[in-house]
Amino acid sequence: MPVNPNAQIEITAFKWVPEFAQGVVRDLRARWALEEAGLDYRVRLLDQERPPEYLLEQPFDQVPCFSDGQVKIFETGAIAQYIGEKTETLLPRDPQGKYRAIQWTYAALNSVEPALINLLLIDLFFTGEEWAKLRRPGAEDFVRLKLKRVADWLGDKEWLEGRFTIGDLIMITTLRFLRHTELVAEQPNLAAYVKRGEARPAFQRALNDQLAVFAANQPQMEGAAV
Amino acid sequence: MPVNPNAQIEITAFKWVPEFAQGVVRDLRARWALEEAGLDYRVRLLDQERPPEYLLEQPFDQVPCFSDGQVKIFETGAIAQYIGEKTETLLPRDPQGKYRAIQWTYAALNSVEPALINLLLIDLFFTGEEWAKLRRPGAEDFVRLKLKRVADWLGDKEWLEGRFTIGDLIMITTLRFLRHTELVAEQPNLAAYVKRGEARPAFQRALNDQLAVFAANQPQMEGAAV
Repeated sequence: MPVNPNAQIEITAFKWVPEFAQGVVRDLRARWALEEAGLDYRVRLLDQERPPEYLLEQPFDQVPCFSDGQVKIFETGAIAQYIGEKTETLLPRDPQGKYRAIQWTYAALNSVEPALINLLLIDLFFTGEEWAKLRRPGAEDFVRLKLKRVADWLGDKEWLEGRFTIGDLIMITTLRFLRHTELVAEQPNLAAYVKRGEARPAFQRALNDQLAVFAANQPQMEGAAV
Repeated sequence: MPVNPNAQIEITAFKWVPEFAQGVVRDLRARWALEEAGLDYRVRLLDQERPPEYLLEQPFDQVPCFSDGQVKIFETGAIAQYIGEKTETLLPRDPQGKYRAIQWTYAALNSVEPALINLLLIDLFFTGEEWAKLRRPGAEDFVRLKLKRVADWLGDKEWLEGRFTIGDLIMITTLRFLRHTELVAEQPNLAAYVKRGEARPAFQRALNDQLAVFAANQPQMEGAAV
């Protein structure tokens, strides 16, 4: 059970987020990688309104930050890679295998995620704005193209490079940003790939641990006492 | 002079691109890293219309791909990191220094670049579209926020972590995507930081080598013979 208040490794996460974000906040990636590596970690919980000094740790005001006493970093790609270096479960040791995994980590974060987050913002944050209505079809087509590229590469392989790596961990958590749509389902091999990742016991523990925090810190609704 | 037709290392690049893209196409990052490392490389030039089989090398149909015979990868973050492993000029050897540099590489590509490319597309590809006009002020504000975050972190330091690394190489080439605007100039320390990067002899050689290819392959304009 890697969540351990006395662990050397610490990550930051939110106490609570609205339901649309529960289960996709980015500390999930760090939790999943730590679970795959079997490394204990503790969680420093932050209010959604972060104190200004948090910017000195994380200049973009996001979660998670990671520290193991020796290395203190942010950005989930870097965190997954650093944890990956500790276990062959996440990162092959041969140069080609290692760098193909790292390449897919970057690909998920730079060649795929921006298109998906763009659509997510249109659907969940800018709903009803005129530009968002006009832009949505084009934004959705661009997402479809990105998904097709990944699906075509994946083909009938189990993982992007045949065996599970941090590249899959980051790609699958990226594809999950589309869970409010049917776009991943349009590519059956990609949908099966996401399910394969989600079925890993390490993913399940990571997800449950993130959700447990939100359940424990659910804000009282105004008037809920009535 | 690292461009060498007999080199072991090969990267892909375009024969020619329109002027707005000249000097910012992503093979610049690979060229710059190779110049900093003093590694010879050859260039495989592609037409803008790539053959369908290029997707088997680069599933997102972009440049550059990288190969040194041992490792064959795409994604400029992964390429910069792989080259960085070969020289302390680009990547410190101690774990904290190394992973801070890697963290900034991911930060540039995931926490900064998407906002900048979004504005670039609005300005250069979707000009005149109604949604683009309506969205531009908000997209620009989001870029400003991202630039402020980086500028605040940088402060009066010369480089993001005090000394030059692949993090700076990727961040500076990312910030250059805004060269059609005055947004970086609004943050004087950030503008000076970009200039500092561009003044490096390795950057100058990389830029000149990219531009020389475009100059040599300039398409004949219709009617230019008249």
